[in-house]
This record gives sequence, structure tokens and C-alpha cells, in this order.
Amino acid sequence: MAMKKSMIIVAGGSGSRMGAEIPKQFMELRGKPILMHTLDKMKDVDADMQLIIVLPLDQMEKWEKLCYKHGFSTPHLMAEGGATRFQSVENGLRLVDDSELLGVHDGVRPLFSTQLVHNLFAEADKSGAAIPVTPVVPSLRLVKENSNQAVDRSSYRQVQTPQCFKTSILKTAFGNAEHVNYSDDAAVVEANGGSISLVNGDPDNIKITNPIDLELAELIIQRRQD
Amino acid sequence: MAMKKSMIIVAGGSGSRMGAEIPKQFMELRGKPILMHTLDKMKDVDADMQLIIVLPLDQMEKWEKLCYKHGFSTPHLMAEGGATRFQSVENGLRLVDDSELLGVHDGVRPLFSTQLVHNLFAEADKSGAAIPVTPVVPSLRLVKENSNQAVDRSSYRQVQTPQCFKTSILKTAFGNAEHVNYSDDAAVVEANGGSISLVNGDPDNIKITNPIDLELAELIIQRRQD
Repeated sequence: MAMKKSMIIVAGGSGSRMGAEIPKQFMELRGKPILMHTLDKMKDVDADMQLIIVLPLDQMEKWEKLCYKHGFSTPHLMAEGGATRFQSVENGLRLVDDSELLGVHDGVRPLFSTQLVHNLFAEADKSGAAIPVTPVVPSLRLVKENSNQAVDRSSYRQVQTPQCFKTSILKTAFGNAEHVNYSDDAAVVEANGGSISLVNGDPDNIKITNPIDLELAELIIQRRQD
Repeated sequence: MAMKKSMIIVAGGSGSRMGAEIPKQFMELRGKPILMHTLDKMKDVDADMQLIIVLPLDQMEKWEKLCYKHGFSTPHLMAEGGATRFQSVENGLRLVDDSELLGVHDGVRPLFSTQLVHNLFAEADKSGAAIPVTPVVPSLRLVKENSNQAVDRSSYRQVQTPQCFKTSILKTAFGNAEHVNYSDDAAVVEANGGSISLVNGDPDNIKITNPIDLELAELIIQRRQD
């Protein structure tokens, strides 16, 4: 029998960077809010996976209306967004059931492949913590107070989500965390002494942050259909 | 009187990453080869700037045919591409006239603003070397032999082109260089003891490397026209 899994999907954006009134996770891609794409794709990974979305309190009603309007019936729980990503994930963690494996994903990353998530959970089951990474393409510089220097980009990786863990490892790391400003969930585990396995990410697994990203996402979907 | 300037535009791509027979710098954007967009935009910066393109030997005839076909008359010189970027720039350097300021740019970055290049030359005139950089958006990890660790992305910058210099500084640095595998021209200057000034780059100043980038470039142009 497959291991029980949960996925916390953080959707805390306010839409301000999109220059839009509507939060970016509610903006439509092919006529359907981005967050619904993300949830449906996670359901494709494993229909039994527990799905938990984390939304700012003042967006919950809007979300429920959108679900009604779009006839969206993919089962999911809702947790309240916090002031930081750390606090949002912490709120999501409280709703996690007895799953042995747990992922944390950005609500505005709807274009991951199901294979990627399978790979991440398999590696998390083996080593405890697995995250998807991609190469750094441009040259990279390290900036110090009064100077800066070239660094070898081939020694760096860009991090995506979902970040997947043994549930016990992520819960313990969050319990022991000493501040709320970690750059991502892997960093929380690392701060608690855990090591992180890297899995090849997918260049198409973009985070929709700016208006141009939304158009790029449309192109990626179009290309997949062609 | 404005200072004399030259710009070396490196266009060495073979098109293999584009999954296309045609080199990426010759692919069309709005019906015009990318490299022509880049040259025309540089002419907009300063009509008196000396423009030098660096092309693989076996692409020169094709380029001349394209210029004829498109009635392209923006004056430019041609240098032969080398085995590495360093060697390509070195070949371009031999054609630089008595310009006091010199830039090196990627042929497949046609979407920079003229203001960006003005800013870079102004800073290069003041400090010797100036490059455009943008923030690192995703989380970043440093990979070592048997481990990896989160690093603070706010301490890093992604590097774009054009990279601009006092001509004497870049020529001297290339003359003193000890290998041919520098990640960019700023790294050559830095290896020679020079320091590099950072100028705010432009997110739209993308490098067209993959097929999706070409579509993204179309979107950016479209957005500018709307």
C-alpha cells in the first residue's frame, strides 16, 4: 500500500506585484484560477493525498465563491495564512493528519509534472528531505558591504517547490525553529541539523509572480497541447 | 563632445539548444533576426558607437545573405568567433578603434533599454567597469562534494550584459588573462585586480536561449506596444 501523504499549498500572495486587485493565486490561467490548477495537478499525483491550502483570512470567502462558480470539487482543507511563510506553513502543519510523508508547495506553481512529485516523495522517504533544484544559468556575483566578486555558478542551484519531507522531520524542525525568516522549508530542516537531498527540478515549474509569468504559463500549457 | 564608444556583440550560438537548424541569433522576432534587433537598439543608444559582431566563421555568409534579404544597413564590423567566449571577445577586441569606452554584449539579448546602456557607460567612465545585475528571486543553495547548504540569496546578484569598461582596462585585462574559461568579461577584469561596479539591470533584458524565451520576448515586445 502506498504511504500516506499530505501537501501544504501556500497561497499567501496579495496580488500587489501583479499590479492587480485580484490575488495572484486567484488569477485565471485558461479560464481557471491558478490555485485550482495546482490542486488538481496534486490530485493527479495521488488521489488520496491530503491537500491543505493556506490562505490569508480575508481571501477565504472569495476562494469559496470561486470554488462554487467554477464547480470546483477537489477535496481540500483550508488553514489561515500567517505574517511570514514560516507561520503560514506552521498553520498548515496543524491540519496534517497521520501522513508519513509531507510536502510544502507554492500555490502559484501549477506547472510541475506528476513525475517530479513522485521523485521527491521517493527521495524524502529514503533520506528524509528532498527538494527540486535547477542549474543557475546566468553569471552570479556575491555582494559584500563594499565589494562584490564573481562566484562559480556551477556550484549553486536554484530551489523550487514542492519540498518533500518525512512528516516527523518537518514537524520537529518547525517545533525547534528559532525565528520565522527562513528562506524556505528545507532551510528550517537544515537549521535543525537535517540534510537535504537534491532532485532535478523542471524548468517549466515556474512561480507565477509577475504579469509576464502568467503569459509564460499560458505558453507552456499551449506548447504541451501542441 | 560625447566619448567615443564601441560595443562587441558576441553571437556564437549554434542553435542546438533551440532544437533548430538555424542559429538562435538568426531566429526571427517580429519578422527580423534577433541579432538585427540587438544592433538596431545599440544604434539607438548612440548612433556613433562602433558596433562589432562576433560570429562563427561558418555563419558569416548566412549573415550577409540575411542582411541583404532584410535590407539591413546598420553599420557594423564582423570578427570571427573563437572556441570560447573569451576567445570570441578577444577577436572582437582587435577591431576596436580609438574608443575610450567599450561594452561587451550578448547578441541574443535584444530587449535592453537604451537608458540601461547609458547608465552603464556613465558608471564605467567613472569607475572603470560596470555591469547590470538583477536580484536572485528563488532560494539558492551552495553545492559541495557531499553536501549542500542554503545561502542568503539577498547576498547574490544575477549578471546580465552589456558589461561596460574603460577600453584600456578591458584590453589590459584580456592581455594579462591566464586562461580562457572566465564566466564573463567582468571576471576577466576582476582577475586582473580590477573592481566592478554594479548597476541595476532590467528584468526584461532576457537572454534568448530556449524556444520559450523567444515566445517570452514576443510577449515583452507586445506589452511595450500596448
